[in-house]
Amino acid sequence: MRFSLTSQPSADGVTEQSFTLGEIPGVLFTPRDATGPRPLILMGHGGGQHKRAPGILAGAHRFAAEGGFAVAAIDAPNHGDRPKDEQFIQFAGDMRARMAAGEHPAELVAAMHDLLAGQTVDDWQAVVTAVQELDHVGEGPVGYWGVSMGCGVGVPLLAADSRIRAAVLGLLGVHGLAGTAARVTVPVRFLLQWDDTRVSRDQALALFDALGSKDKTLHANPGDHGGIPPHETDDALRFFARHLG
Amino acid sequence: MRFSLTSQPSADGVTEQSFTLGEIPGVLFTPRDATGPRPLILMGHGGGQHKRAPGILAGAHRFAAEGGFAVAAIDAPNHGDRPKDEQFIQFAGDMRARMAAGEHPAELVAAMHDLLAGQTVDDWQAVVTAVQELDHVGEGPVGYWGVSMGCGVGVPLLAADSRIRAAVLGLLGVHGLAGTAARVTVPVRFLLQWDDTRVSRDQALALFDALGSKDKTLHANPGDHGGIPPHETDDALRFFARHLG
Repeated sequence: MRFSLTSQPSADGVTEQSFTLGEIPGVLFTPRDATGPRPLILMGHGGGQHKRAPGILAGAHRFAAEGGFAVAAIDAPNHGDRPKDEQFIQFAGDMRARMAAGEHPAELVAAMHDLLAGQTVDDWQAVVTAVQELDHVGEGPVGYWGVSMGCGVGVPLLAADSRIRAAVLGLLGVHGLAGTAARVTVPVRFLLQWDDTRVSRDQALALFDALGSKDKTLHANPGDHGGIPPHETDDALRFFARHLG
Repeated sequence: MRFSLTSQPSADGVTEQSFTLGEIPGVLFTPRDATGPRPLILMGHGGGQHKRAPGILAGAHRFAAEGGFAVAAIDAPNHGDRPKDEQFIQFAGDMRARMAAGEHPAELVAAMHDLLAGQTVDDWQAVVTAVQELDHVGEGPVGYWGVSMGCGVGVPLLAADSRIRAAVLGLLGVHGLAGTAARVTVPVRFLLQWDDTRVSRDQALALFDALGSKDKTLHANPGDHGGIPPHETDDALRFFARHLG
């Protein structure tokens, strides 16, 4: 793990450290002058976004500043600072063509997440191991936050890695995920946007239903895909504090 | 308004005052030694329950002790300490017979709520006016908490009384309420039990959908009708503090 840049703490007292682990570019957010172990939250970005997308930055800063958490965000394969491979470029072009031809977008989105999930799960597992070796992170409990594509690759991660003890997911339908979702058993907050034009309400309700967790809560709010209201960040903070604190 | 009994503060520092307003028996919960105006929360109980049902007492004590709210609970018509009138007795008998004959319970439940709603709305409006004349309540903002029958009579109350600024509702389907729900415009938390054997999931989602409020959040949790998890009381406290505080 190579740290390429450590920023001064920002106005809210959060230090950002850019890192590279093998081919994975990431950012680690910690409270100013943090020492000793603390819970770690992994934040998975949406499709076409990256580790410093506005929603990731805003959440990471609040989790670190107000909750005292360490937060790691990485670029998903073929996103952000990572090179796009030939298979991805071909798939993305194919996807545009099939959507233009009227094919159901949910199936294509699910196929795209499936293409990325294997590598993403490997990446996150390596990042958790490396980040937890740092003195100011340590081996505390781990949480995951990811909606939309961050949910599509997060569900397989949760099914694969028992270090992750609680997750905020959502903004995605069940397509291609039912079996994997059934193997998720940790507490989950599932966010649904009631007027989501990109995700069918029924399919999203079906993904919530498919999660194997006994402790799971669906939070549905009016508005489109990108319009999660700010009070859900307050709630996520308390949710992680309750389960990782 | 006649106060029949004022208890000593309980261990959590909440004073209970039993009152009668005309024919309405009620309880007022306030923090120990409360003086001056404060927000008021009205709590409407479920069908067959009463003003001191366990769920009402538990919520009222937390709202008063932790939020500093005044809380009023009353017996609905034909419930608790109130006499049962002939129409209600006949309706209840008829309802049992029709349910035994396999008629859809949601329609009967809706008819029962409709039978009680007119008087219940009048009762709550009189109680708000009377309670707000007390020095330790005053004319602060008002909230409403009611699920199941408390939702069935609460929706008409919210549509009728603009003094109520925020509400926690739920555990009920849309049957007979769509038009009234569309006239509700205040912030709402809507609680849904994912495995409710008494309320159809689709009908409950449809009631959430029908609410006219721009600021509304559905919280769905696994479990049957009576199994709302404790963290929803924490959430209700914060919700009321945010909108009435």
